[in-house]
Amino acid sequence: MTELKAIAENYIAAWNETDAAARRALINRTWTEGATYVDPMMQGEGHDGIDAMIAGVQSKFPGFRFTLDSKVDGYGDKIRFSWACGPDGAPDLVKGTDFGVVADGRLRRVTGFLDQVPPGM
Amino acid sequence: MTELKAIAENYIAAWNETDAAARRALINRTWTEGATYVDPMMQGEGHDGIDAMIAGVQSKFPGFRFTLDSKVDGYGDKIRFSWACGPDGAPDLVKGTDFGVVADGRLRRVTGFLDQVPPGM
Repeated sequence: MTELKAIAENYIAAWNETDAAARRALINRTWTEGATYVDPMMQGEGHDGIDAMIAGVQSKFPGFRFTLDSKVDGYGDKIRFSWACGPDGAPDLVKGTDFGVVADGRLRRVTGFLDQVPPGM
Repeated sequence: MTELKAIAENYIAAWNETDAAARRALINRTWTEGATYVDPMMQGEGHDGIDAMIAGVQSKFPGFRFTLDSKVDGYGDKIRFSWACGPDGAPDLVKGTDFGVVADGRLRRVTGFLDQVPPGM
């Protein structure tokens, strides 16, 4: 579980990291080369695709911060955790739950669901 | 979403169906031939394996009833819902969240997580 917790923490850190080189280093450490991400609003594949997806969200919502919003749950190669995000220092606007599959200590696949979305977003 | 709701309802119905032929019919209708199920306590593969897994739970916990415990959420080929179970007419003992992948209107893969488990279970 310590490894899964570290994976989830690095995953959240990558969503928050706006320095391009540091973000890419976090992505390389946290995702396998061919990893896939999908949620109801976006998707990304591979380190390049996931990096571009996260950079796009950061560009669209400047100053937003992601935080872990649950314990990190898991068994076998499965991981689950919830997150929240919103403007830094303000109440969270968006919440979601991610389910993933881990391979060799990195995320191979993440499927995201949204638990809270503000109207019109 | 209507299709996903029907899939989740048939899935729950199969867990509750103790008549072997009726349960198998529900499983055939709800799962693809090569479908897989896994959660922290058990796993099953294919119609035979999933049927045997559910029959095993029914045998171990006679009289338990499963109910849907959330709305049925989904997008694309993804589905997510929560369930609860316990002795019929008594408070629920176990709760969990399943997320799955659907193909041609049937479940191809379900990964379950436990949200509540009584001590010692």
